[in-house]
Amino acid sequence: MEITVIFLGAENEGNIGSLARVMKNFGLTDLILVSPKVMIGKDAIKAAMHAQDVLRSAKIVEKFEDAIKNVDFVVGTTARLGWNYNVLRTPIYPDQLSRLKEVEGKVAIVFGRESSGLTNEELNKCDIVLTIPANPEYPTLNITHAAAIIFYEIFKMFKKSQAERYRCASRIEKEKILEIFHELLREIEYPQEKTQIAFRIFRNIIGRSFISGREAHTLMGVFRRTIMVIKRLKQKK
Amino acid sequence: MEITVIFLGAENEGNIGSLARVMKNFGLTDLILVSPKVMIGKDAIKAAMHAQDVLRSAKIVEKFEDAIKNVDFVVGTTARLGWNYNVLRTPIYPDQLSRLKEVEGKVAIVFGRESSGLTNEELNKCDIVLTIPANPEYPTLNITHAAAIIFYEIFKMFKKSQAERYRCASRIEKEKILEIFHELLREIEYPQEKTQIAFRIFRNIIGRSFISGREAHTLMGVFRRTIMVIKRLKQKK
Repeated sequence: MEITVIFLGAENEGNIGSLARVMKNFGLTDLILVSPKVMIGKDAIKAAMHAQDVLRSAKIVEKFEDAIKNVDFVVGTTARLGWNYNVLRTPIYPDQLSRLKEVEGKVAIVFGRESSGLTNEELNKCDIVLTIPANPEYPTLNITHAAAIIFYEIFKMFKKSQAERYRCASRIEKEKILEIFHELLREIEYPQEKTQIAFRIFRNIIGRSFISGREAHTLMGVFRRTIMVIKRLKQKK
Repeated sequence: MEITVIFLGAENEGNIGSLARVMKNFGLTDLILVSPKVMIGKDAIKAAMHAQDVLRSAKIVEKFEDAIKNVDFVVGTTARLGWNYNVLRTPIYPDQLSRLKEVEGKVAIVFGRESSGLTNEELNKCDIVLTIPANPEYPTLNITHAAAIIFYEIFKMFKKSQAERYRCASRIEKEKILEIFHELLREIEYPQEKTQIAFRIFRNIIGRSFISGREAHTLMGVFRRTIMVIKRLKQKK
């Protein structure tokens, strides 16, 4: 699946540059501008930061039809769900974009004018309409903010198995640290009736913290030394 | 849970306004600027669009400490994971923020300067560090794009089930437990050169685990008793 970003009737140069930047942030490079009201000048270049390449390779076309003629699946974006909205379209939300995975060819994500978004006619040319859940009192996001959220969701979905971003402590390591903590409780003669609770609480904290292997070893080291210090002091007594 | 947005050393008026807009888009209103390099002028007002109220009520303070003094849980943001990165911090991702639900008091989301982000010293004052998965070739998002993604995830999470809550430990409780842990390290004569690392690791685990008030007190009890046992044994020596 390839993704093309289409921006219709851009009214602000900064937004073009800013869109290029956030595209590159999420690994997208293919930008088409449909009859922009402004040209790509220094404000766009400034906002694009390190995404000049995206900006330079942007295509400019006259009509929306030209932009989507080689596209297999067109995703329109809109904030206007409350009013002036074609109720026949049931919008999807950014975190439902995983369905895009099933598309084999080209996918376009289409953003409309800053002032008025996509027209109903344009939305009707899209395969699906996407909206971002937001504050009903002010749901209209800046176009590049909407883009950031959508690109982020797409990026996430393709990187899904980020499960092990770092090596989480293994079961054995976690059991070991719990065992040592238990030994510590015994060594300090922690009241019998409270031991179970303290132990559970410690286990919960360890579990929720997604402790890494390295962290587990450091903490084990601290507890082991504590126990050793206590034992030694007891012997000398 | 209340959310405060903190923007440190803002360098660009447009970004302040744009941040206010996206805050309002996701129902947030409480903005604190820490020693901004620019004042709120017409560019900020223009970028804020229909979020003038957020901009008007923004507080300006001198120091980061002033901004977080009443905050119970501080979330720092960073893009700099590859280089110049304090390897001791294991970051969380925006879609793991659902754990914030467990915090009952104030939560701050902290954004750093456009040019250089948060310093390591500032990140060290945070309970957790958050990063947005992005293109490794250009992972640095515009600050308001990062904000859009984070606020969107938070907004989504509150729209989902308001499942079981518990009282997260307050800032004071967390400081107390860290202090006691530090005392323990001293008491067991933990090697000087490793103390800082052990301390940081413990702090990170506490942060990531969203420790509850009750859990914090139990753990403090265990450590206090340990210290007491060691001291008593030393006296008898």
